[in-house]
Amino acid sequence: MSAEIRLVEVGPRDGLQNESAQVPTEAKIAFVDQLSAAGLEEIEVSSFVAPGWIPQLEDAEAVFAGITRRPGVRYTALVPNQRGLARALAARVDGIAVFTAASETFARKNINATIAESIERFRPVLADSPVPVRGYVSTAFHCPFEGRIAPEAVLRVTLALLELGCREISLGDTIGKATTDDVERLLDVVLPRCPADRLALHLHDTFANAVANAVAGADRGIRVFDGSTGGIGGCPYAPGAPGNVATEALVHAFAGRTGVDRKALAAAARTIRPFLTRGGAGSAPTGRSPS
Amino acid sequence: MSAEIRLVEVGPRDGLQNESAQVPTEAKIAFVDQLSAAGLEEIEVSSFVAPGWIPQLEDAEAVFAGITRRPGVRYTALVPNQRGLARALAARVDGIAVFTAASETFARKNINATIAESIERFRPVLADSPVPVRGYVSTAFHCPFEGRIAPEAVLRVTLALLELGCREISLGDTIGKATTDDVERLLDVVLPRCPADRLALHLHDTFANAVANAVAGADRGIRVFDGSTGGIGGCPYAPGAPGNVATEALVHAFAGRTGVDRKALAAAARTIRPFLTRGGAGSAPTGRSPS
Repeated sequence: MSAEIRLVEVGPRDGLQNESAQVPTEAKIAFVDQLSAAGLEEIEVSSFVAPGWIPQLEDAEAVFAGITRRPGVRYTALVPNQRGLARALAARVDGIAVFTAASETFARKNINATIAESIERFRPVLADSPVPVRGYVSTAFHCPFEGRIAPEAVLRVTLALLELGCREISLGDTIGKATTDDVERLLDVVLPRCPADRLALHLHDTFANAVANAVAGADRGIRVFDGSTGGIGGCPYAPGAPGNVATEALVHAFAGRTGVDRKALAAAARTIRPFLTRGGAGSAPTGRSPS
Repeated sequence: MSAEIRLVEVGPRDGLQNESAQVPTEAKIAFVDQLSAAGLEEIEVSSFVAPGWIPQLEDAEAVFAGITRRPGVRYTALVPNQRGLARALAARVDGIAVFTAASETFARKNINATIAESIERFRPVLADSPVPVRGYVSTAFHCPFEGRIAPEAVLRVTLALLELGCREISLGDTIGKATTDDVERLLDVVLPRCPADRLALHLHDTFANAVANAVAGADRGIRVFDGSTGGIGGCPYAPGAPGNVATEALVHAFAGRTGVDRKALAAAARTIRPFLTRGGAGSAPTGRSPS
């Protein structure tokens, strides 16, 4: 049986980026290899941003060079611009991702650009990319600065990114505040204009609602969900709170439909966790991956 | 607007019972008073079991004597037998609860009786009780010893408890392993024989699925959910993992439908948490109630 639900693992990139710990390159490589062995078919391995931006991920090249590529698994990276793309391609990525937001304030604070400017920046990246491009739309439900975001604003960014050539758009509940009602309201607006198979949900578990939101999304036809094994990364807006939903939780919620081995993910989480004990939000035992 | 979803707070009883810390009576009283002030209308305050059984709750009389009774709020207690009932009534409870399981092995290990014996024990309690009685059915989905529990077994216990005179039956996902599919499968069997307004769901968040399961239950017409403010209590079967779903998470998930103030609950959780730092599973910041 082919996996009905596709999970995109973002722990090595989005998770580690939000941990204060500097994880040794070897530990990251081992983590990625454990994740692919667990049955995940898409892993966002790292980020090719300018030096100094994200110190936790500055070994992106070394990580890509060290991993054992498992056939059928796509290893991807976040890329902010053409220089990042060139580095990513040299590292033999199978796909890249670009990143903007549905909230102007969030975009300005996080990527130092208006939403429109960010999309213009991506244009040459998309034009040059020989590999599939994923577009992240952050703050697709709530913004920590602006509050509730109108579904129509999310739709506009989504359509702009699709037009630019993004293969898939991942809608992010950046502060984890969405309820299932919010998910339904957003999809009511987006799905009539954008096929479900071009969308993913990137859910945070800050308020313990991520799995419920994923199930609500799946009920409406969404088939791709992002997760961070072990729930690593935490939430920058609520120290100690969960950030990205744990991939294990999604595997459990979509029992038998993901093709991923939950216990193998839990083992991977146990392996990486000791490296996160220097104060990262995910370093505390959050209980998201009981063995 | 009347509250469409009713939350039953079990933190002071089920939560504290699973914490290793001995919380001072005054702190419990303050906790219960904060919970009622937050808008909760039913609070399971303590347990009247024989001395030595649950040392954490041996001050049940003192807690009931100390709380400020808010009009419209029902203060209840767990009661295993007629002696417990007499003590509970002397403490002026507004309701009691009895406790059995859907798994024979779990019943034997936890209450030292077969399911049938436990129900026979409750018969005189129900006959004597002048206050409404709630029946808990533990391991309604999975048992830590027997594995998956047949919905028909849950139905049998539920009907037996209703026949005995229980006003409401709370079906417990004791190890938090249920998925939304499990919830639907169980309700498919139970609802045709038992009206939705006689049922509650008592969900654990061990695998981060509790809120999703609550939403799935609400979709089928269930209106009553148990929660533990701050997620206190943890899980006896997975140290460090969440146990009872945090009441705050349910308030968030059922936004505007519970009549409960989530921030006031979070404040209550922050007040009780320092008393749990002697090693209880809930003492670690689980992030279930970010402020």
